[in-house]
Amino acid sequence: MTITITAFESSPDRGRGLARDMRVRWALEEVGQPYEVRLLSFKAMKEPPHLALQPFGQIPTYEEGDLSLFESGAIVLHIAERHAGLLPDDAHARARAIMWIFAALTTMEPTIVERESARYLEGDRSWYEERLALVDERIRKRLGDLSNRLGDREWLDGAFSAGDLEMVSVLLRAKGSGLLEAYTNLAAYVARGQARPAYKRAFDAQRAVFLAASSR
Amino acid sequence: MTITITAFESSPDRGRGLARDMRVRWALEEVGQPYEVRLLSFKAMKEPPHLALQPFGQIPTYEEGDLSLFESGAIVLHIAERHAGLLPDDAHARARAIMWIFAALTTMEPTIVERESARYLEGDRSWYEERLALVDERIRKRLGDLSNRLGDREWLDGAFSAGDLEMVSVLLRAKGSGLLEAYTNLAAYVARGQARPAYKRAFDAQRAVFLAASSR
Repeated sequence: MTITITAFESSPDRGRGLARDMRVRWALEEVGQPYEVRLLSFKAMKEPPHLALQPFGQIPTYEEGDLSLFESGAIVLHIAERHAGLLPDDAHARARAIMWIFAALTTMEPTIVERESARYLEGDRSWYEERLALVDERIRKRLGDLSNRLGDREWLDGAFSAGDLEMVSVLLRAKGSGLLEAYTNLAAYVARGQARPAYKRAFDAQRAVFLAASSR
Repeated sequence: MTITITAFESSPDRGRGLARDMRVRWALEEVGQPYEVRLLSFKAMKEPPHLALQPFGQIPTYEEGDLSLFESGAIVLHIAERHAGLLPDDAHARARAIMWIFAALTTMEPTIVERESARYLEGDRSWYEERLALVDERIRKRLGDLSNRLGDREWLDGAFSAGDLEMVSVLLRAKGSGLLEAYTNLAAYVARGQARPAYKRAFDAQRAVFLAASSR
């Protein structure tokens, strides 16, 4: 059955692999499932046909026969449950891998996203710099806790899992700010994720979309 | 096997049921599983024994024999996978119920939490009122999208599921701000959740902890 996902026709991150279709592409590459991509303009994302699939007007979506899903976290978990390679067989280790998906998306990501949304929604406000310092303090707290837990482990809990895929994806959003780089074990962890062949294939695929769009 | 969760010894929400142990209690009540509660002071939450269970120094945690989990979303999903009552049997409906867990925790909750964190972290700053208006605008957008999707349905996708449990729990955090109340179908949806006997048992249990602490 063909898997079709949606992605930005022209990614606002300019092909840096931070849009959430990247996580789904990465998961599909890890488990060796081919997929098709339907590209959407910003306008089409807010129109009824897409809103019927994604009530919040976002990407990605995932379609496979009669099944239609949104939320990249749910899609990655669905892929991990259906195909070998992203969740351990042991029931307890599997539950912990899923726990790390939630830790990435609900404990780490909102704080990091707040930094980005401050920039594009409040970047011209008088309070921006002062508030950014408060946001960065919260990000550092979370990164420090995660760094302590990771220690010198290769991955968060044994073998690479969907939990690492999500955590690396989230931490990548803090890369270049100097915040991530202050924790050398986290920076090395992210680099290990980016070095995976499946990550590279997914990255190249989303980058090709951006390059094609920008050459038009 | 005994299930033990952790919760605040003295909840910062004063027993209003907004702390995240409430979601785990509710899930356990829905599936009819008894549980024990270990209460933690704010100080104990930041000390090594608890950090070994929860690297970010938060509640709740979940312990059952050799298995130890944190992240309320992961715990609720684990309970839902292990016991009947919170996930449909049909594979596609099950995937959609899990999708709504993620929608609640990653699309809806961060925006609503930003309103709360603005109040307690920036409530005395010069920019607070002006920024609150921006945050509220984003919350209204999300609530409007969710209201459109819910329409006149009783629950998000067929029977009550862990997705509804999480979504009702998240929307409750916006109650009383006037934001939720502007969407009558969402307010009625939340009221339906709160009317469930399992919700009430969980609410009373967490409230009893607060009342006991405040009478000491």
